Amino acid sequence: MATIEQKWFDYVLTLATDNVTHGGGPFAALILRDGELIAEGVNSVTRTNDPTAHAEVMAIRKACEKLGRFQLDDCILIASCEPCPMCFGAIYWARLSAVMYLASGDDAAGAGFDDAFIRSELKLPLTHTRISFRHIVHSDAGKPFEYWKASSSKTEY
Amino acid sequence: MATIEQKWFDYVLTLATDNVTHGGGPFAALILRDGELIAEGVNSVTRTNDPTAHAEVMAIRKACEKLGRFQLDDCILIASCEPCPMCFGAIYWARLSAVMYLASGDDAAGAGFDDAFIRSELKLPLTHTRISFRHIVHSDAGKPFEYWKASSSKTEY
Repeated sequence: MATIEQKWFDYVLTLATDNVTHGGGPFAALILRDGELIAEGVNSVTRTNDPTAHAEVMAIRKACEKLGRFQLDDCILIASCEPCPMCFGAIYWARLSAVMYLASGDDAAGAGFDDAFIRSELKLPLTHTRISFRHIVHSDAGKPFEYWKASSSKTEY
Repeated sequence: MATIEQKWFDYVLTLATDNVTHGGGPFAALILRDGELIAEGVNSVTRTNDPTAHAEVMAIRKACEKLGRFQLDDCILIASCEPCPMCFGAIYWARLSAVMYLASGDDAAGAGFDDAFIRSELKLPLTHTRISFRHIVHSDAGKPFEYWKASSSKTEY
């Protein structure tokens, strides 16, 4: 992997810090391709009433919109902080080639953002999680997948 | 918890099946409050070039927008299929009170959606994941959190 210029690490931390001043959470993320900035995102959860609007998710959405595709396998993500499990999942679905992060999950926990709770819940069987997950038996549960498998016009991802 | 009417289970499966016909993935989700439909979402990844546009995320975003808040602790989510790790994280950040799902992760895997890979990656230390996660040491890494802790105008979440 090519060396990433130090300026991007400085920049993502500045974005994260400035976002607090603008009423957001202390997080930012960048998407780069070949050393060039494709998109940036800042935590916008409370500002936009969207609990999924973490910096990494915002940056991924914007990069995909800009590049007109739903995969970013030629891009890297730089995050001001270690991604939470939701963002980890988003990074995998977007198939980013690599991630670099500055602050650790422990640093975030020290500021009241305890992603570790979600991480530990993810390791439990769904019958034991704090939020109740109930599997409902239904005779048509497999029908959407049958249609999917039979469809000749689908776009796989 | 109040009994959920059977019609919602039928409806979410119909939405998921119809979404395949309309070029999307075979997934749908509903948000209910007191038995009333607040929002619905369908998988829109390929249609909108957004890898985070899973049905659950779409439904959560819409419900929050409609209710004008970023937490859904008085709502439940009904998903046509067991949520993937990204959606699991979104469900926790949205603080939904409960989740019900119809098809299992195994059903999804049988149709080519192998969320199990992301789940197993989440259990690894970040030094061992398939996508490289690199912790960059930076003297200002904690600065966004210092600003956050010192801010008197922040909205916590």
